[in-house]
Amino acid sequence: VPAYSQGSALGGVNPDLASERQTPSFSVEKLTALLDGGEENTRIRRAVVEAIESDPVFSRENQYFQSQNEKYEAAVRKAVHLQKKMHEMGWTENGPEFKYIYRALSGEVAFLLHTVFMRSISVLGSDKQITKWIPLATQYQLIGSYAQTELGHGTYLQGLETTAVFDIATQEFILNTPKISAMKWWPGDMGRSATHAVVFAQLDIQGKCYGVHPFIVQIRSLWDHSLCPGITAGDIGPKMNFDHIDNGYLMLQNVRVPRENMLSKFCEVQPDGTYVRRGSQQINYFTMTALRVALISHEAVIPLMKACTIAIRYSVVRRQSKLKPGEEEAKILDFQTQQEKLLPHVAAAYAFHFINNYLEDLFNRGYEEIQRENFDMLPELHAFSSGFKAMVTQYCASAVEACLRACGGHGYSLLSGLPSLCTRILASCIYEGENTILFLQTARFLIKCFMAASAGHPVPPSVTYLAAVKPGKCPAKNKFDFLSPDTYTEAYQHAAVRLISSTAAKLQDLIQSGVKKHDAWNECTVQLVQAVKAHCHYITVKNFAETVERLETKGGIQRIMKHLCDLFALHGIFSNAGVFLHDGYISGAQMDMVTASYLDLLAVIRKDAVPLVDAFDFTDKTLNSALGSYDGQVYQRLYEWAQKSPTNTQMNPAYERYLKPLLHKKLSKL
Amino acid sequence: VPAYSQGSALGGVNPDLASERQTPSFSVEKLTALLDGGEENTRIRRAVVEAIESDPVFSRENQYFQSQNEKYEAAVRKAVHLQKKMHEMGWTENGPEFKYIYRALSGEVAFLLHTVFMRSISVLGSDKQITKWIPLATQYQLIGSYAQTELGHGTYLQGLETTAVFDIATQEFILNTPKISAMKWWPGDMGRSATHAVVFAQLDIQGKCYGVHPFIVQIRSLWDHSLCPGITAGDIGPKMNFDHIDNGYLMLQNVRVPRENMLSKFCEVQPDGTYVRRGSQQINYFTMTALRVALISHEAVIPLMKACTIAIRYSVVRRQSKLKPGEEEAKILDFQTQQEKLLPHVAAAYAFHFINNYLEDLFNRGYEEIQRENFDMLPELHAFSSGFKAMVTQYCASAVEACLRACGGHGYSLLSGLPSLCTRILASCIYEGENTILFLQTARFLIKCFMAASAGHPVPPSVTYLAAVKPGKCPAKNKFDFLSPDTYTEAYQHAAVRLISSTAAKLQDLIQSGVKKHDAWNECTVQLVQAVKAHCHYITVKNFAETVERLETKGGIQRIMKHLCDLFALHGIFSNAGVFLHDGYISGAQMDMVTASYLDLLAVIRKDAVPLVDAFDFTDKTLNSALGSYDGQVYQRLYEWAQKSPTNTQMNPAYERYLKPLLHKKLSKL
Repeated sequence: VPAYSQGSALGGVNPDLASERQTPSFSVEKLTALLDGGEENTRIRRAVVEAIESDPVFSRENQYFQSQNEKYEAAVRKAVHLQKKMHEMGWTENGPEFKYIYRALSGEVAFLLHTVFMRSISVLGSDKQITKWIPLATQYQLIGSYAQTELGHGTYLQGLETTAVFDIATQEFILNTPKISAMKWWPGDMGRSATHAVVFAQLDIQGKCYGVHPFIVQIRSLWDHSLCPGITAGDIGPKMNFDHIDNGYLMLQNVRVPRENMLSKFCEVQPDGTYVRRGSQQINYFTMTALRVALISHEAVIPLMKACTIAIRYSVVRRQSKLKPGEEEAKILDFQTQQEKLLPHVAAAYAFHFINNYLEDLFNRGYEEIQRENFDMLPELHAFSSGFKAMVTQYCASAVEACLRACGGHGYSLLSGLPSLCTRILASCIYEGENTILFLQTARFLIKCFMAASAGHPVPPSVTYLAAVKPGKCPAKNKFDFLSPDTYTEAYQHAAVRLISSTAAKLQDLIQSGVKKHDAWNECTVQLVQAVKAHCHYITVKNFAETVERLETKGGIQRIMKHLCDLFALHGIFSNAGVFLHDGYISGAQMDMVTASYLDLLAVIRKDAVPLVDAFDFTDKTLNSALGSYDGQVYQRLYEWAQKSPTNTQMNPAYERYLKPLLHKKLSKL
Repeated sequence: VPAYSQGSALGGVNPDLASERQTPSFSVEKLTALLDGGEENTRIRRAVVEAIESDPVFSRENQYFQSQNEKYEAAVRKAVHLQKKMHEMGWTENGPEFKYIYRALSGEVAFLLHTVFMRSISVLGSDKQITKWIPLATQYQLIGSYAQTELGHGTYLQGLETTAVFDIATQEFILNTPKISAMKWWPGDMGRSATHAVVFAQLDIQGKCYGVHPFIVQIRSLWDHSLCPGITAGDIGPKMNFDHIDNGYLMLQNVRVPRENMLSKFCEVQPDGTYVRRGSQQINYFTMTALRVALISHEAVIPLMKACTIAIRYSVVRRQSKLKPGEEEAKILDFQTQQEKLLPHVAAAYAFHFINNYLEDLFNRGYEEIQRENFDMLPELHAFSSGFKAMVTQYCASAVEACLRACGGHGYSLLSGLPSLCTRILASCIYEGENTILFLQTARFLIKCFMAASAGHPVPPSVTYLAAVKPGKCPAKNKFDFLSPDTYTEAYQHAAVRLISSTAAKLQDLIQSGVKKHDAWNECTVQLVQAVKAHCHYITVKNFAETVERLETKGGIQRIMKHLCDLFALHGIFSNAGVFLHDGYISGAQMDMVTASYLDLLAVIRKDAVPLVDAFDFTDKTLNSALGSYDGQVYQRLYEWAQKSPTNTQMNPAYERYLKPLLHKKLSKL
């Protein structure tokens, strides 16, 4: 038996990968600290990851071989164990460790909706309701879910069909699912776990509808987990990913809950049926908005960083075809096409990391203002969260898939870790607001601001650039001029202004020609989406360039980040050439310069490709990839992992049942 | 219990879907016949589908709930039963029914590599070898696989590392896997089924290497299916799709096969070790080339047609948000953004269907020529098959994913049928030649032809346009001019010529400035890929326009196909605006006309959207989609199917193990 087929003597770092790490142009450790926001954070993050990964209960070793039921069970096991672990480690929800736990678990844990259940009570509940329910939830005396989406209704909340009729006689609400499209569908933790849920329903008092309100409803018995009377619930079945989450359905038939179960911070039904509204709900919108920002990092940027790490490391281990006659086969990352498939996405991962920092700062400031009852920033925050959630998830979903494809056949194996990243990130384009709808929300904001700016009215800081519309041409004279952040940032600004202003003009023309306002809007939506993308792209490039400007020059960090910023910006111009060429702001000759500089940059950044992904600092267990491990022992690991597959460890009943009768029918000696 | 939660009383066609079928602008039945290439073919296809779908052994009812092992077993069961079925039905491999069987089974059947095994023996084997092996294979006295790809080696065949050393003393070849990267990896049917394989290995005679040759090797016992001495083999584990196929690995240790087992139509090792080469291998290249064309229809165009059918039908059943104040919620297909997400892909499905017809005709002609020992067409056929395989699979993979996303959350459920289409089609971008490598093969052909044409030499028919380089501008004066096929076809031609000629110029400049040829080539590859895409796009548009020209005008077919051709062409210009704007061939003002006509077309084709996908004529069982069935009972079906999921039919062990202890710890009465 050859040595390579025995055990796991992987034998150190693959030399092709090791050589990539010998002369980085910057300090990897410093870059990691920059990404973490300081060395102290890096230390805390590593400690959390170490504690989680050394605990066998949190192991992800067999995840690629598990069925939906097994994944769900593992996620519940981890969620329950996590409570214990946090207590043991002294981690609290307000401590610095907390934000790294989800990352360390790669999000494969149950009861995320339990958190949403608690948050919605905290935000929408009265003090009395908070005092009653939050301690129960905190101690897991119940498991909560959040039932908003219906089988036939998603984003458009006014369209929800579940009803809650107030019965004065018994002081109860009677909840019903009047038709199949009104069935609650998708709520996480609902299918098999939850005992309670915050259920959204149309409030009806004496025949009058007061719109959608939240009610706390018990779903399952706390004693034996059986469904409560009038409740039908179950799992919605297999999905493209998120097997570990029991997304569920829920039907209600004359389910009665006491009057006190309507969450009543903002509105209440009094015993006589009087409906009272109070206070401002705006803080509630802020919560939804903040949620979109929160997912950008965990569900889009970090997965992209993982995919880049896997694909880049594999691309220096994999050799295929000869680049020069007579030499050995080349590392595939030395092919220009492979560099072009991957390096812009590495740059994008940094760009989105920095824009995420920017958004988090903005939201922290916004939150302070809102606590002072100043809601002025809300429209801008809403526009930011919608546009960037859509733009970043969309980009990252495509980029993760590009990483998978760039690894060829082996990328297609689940063992590469890429398919699960790919199918999971796809969902982020749909949940918490479908991306097209979100883009159009931002479009409304931009058009409104553009109109205001044109009329000389003040507009929020992020869109003041709309007021400064100047025609003119790009001044670049040679390819090096396109390595100036001012040059490309202005090009992006120009393109954004042009797309927004021309679509605003089309909209006005249509309305003036007699088309009804809503029809005119619909006829402009394809172009509005383009305009919003250009706006978000501009802000991202500008923020990257400003971030680079502010970086310390030590350790080579600023230089390499400047290269990545240039690459991100020029890749965007190269890939969306039409947007920049349309009015001649960039000429064809200048576009050739952009292309030349862009391709030059690929070769420059190629040299630091591995250190740039090493700096993301993912452990092998976090990546869980046969292609992406730090030591680059790709083939050995693929082989070892494949042997653990149930297709190899279980019997093959197809042989006895079908193959044997077939082959034995006319058995001959060959 | 409300009526909707009982049984499967689906209750007829959803009225929103029914209304879409009331006034089609063309005859759906005539269009179906056109797609099938005649009414007789439609009749045969439907008979095959009916025979397959009415047979419970071929049922796909539980496919979304099955494990990898269960899917494999089902595929083997179907493959074995298919032999019986074909005999019963009187279907033969040369009969008109044969090509519809795979479609009717949606490709979920085992032993596809057995066919490749047979074909490779037929093409590469001597008459004696054919006489010995083909009858055994035909009668399934053995199950064959085809072992070419290695763990560390894919496309670049010269790099294969498996060795076959000729032992004169015993008149045997000794096959070995010298290192882990030389392990065969990916061969279908190898993991658990195959008894034999055609194995590619480097031939070594007395220390001299003669390159890669094919050998017939027995893998498993015909009696008890145990692995033969010296053989290590198994399954490579879970993949993103193709769970039903046991892609396998294979290691060889001093495995001896007789001299007669080297396939020897083109070369032979004589008893004394003399190596003899004979005849032309070109017919063999043709086989590989033809395989790429064959997969375009089954693995790319048909899946796209299915995805479009599902997404379009769902988009007229699903209602979301109000388009006009005061009205009910709108069908989502009435939103311009939704039309833009889907209708261009419907047009593309037709465009690719027609280009596939064109390629099939071309290959049939090529095959006739080759049988007359005329190999002149081979380079052009190779370029066609590579470029179009890459272009069509790439487009269709993106388009199927777009269909999934366009269905929002429900598209993400496996029950929609879209995730499995999506993950399966992704593989088509990788197998039978990774797409970037294929694009670059076509690029070599195009650059060579461009050089020849520039020098006044004759070139193959498909590229004569390269010789007719004329500058000039697009003559369109208003948006209606862009509905002229001549106008847009010329724009595509111009763009293709510009990209090919400018990249050829860059290549020459680099070489003249002293850059080595292979480095210069590498530095042009990103642009070469762009150029090839433009070439293939041009040919597709031109072929679509010519096909429309030839259609009969009756039944409204030509008119609707003209709309689709326009849409396909204008979508391409709109989405790749930079390519057309670069040298000013199309001006910014003209691009606005393109955009206007493009958006107008969406609204026109919207009216016929459902009949256009109905014409693809998929049965509900073929689609296997809760969203895409003919009756549009989307919500009812999602609910019914979800109830059959193992997450609902099996016990929940997580409750007893983790949830109960948690909830009972401090059980309180709420």
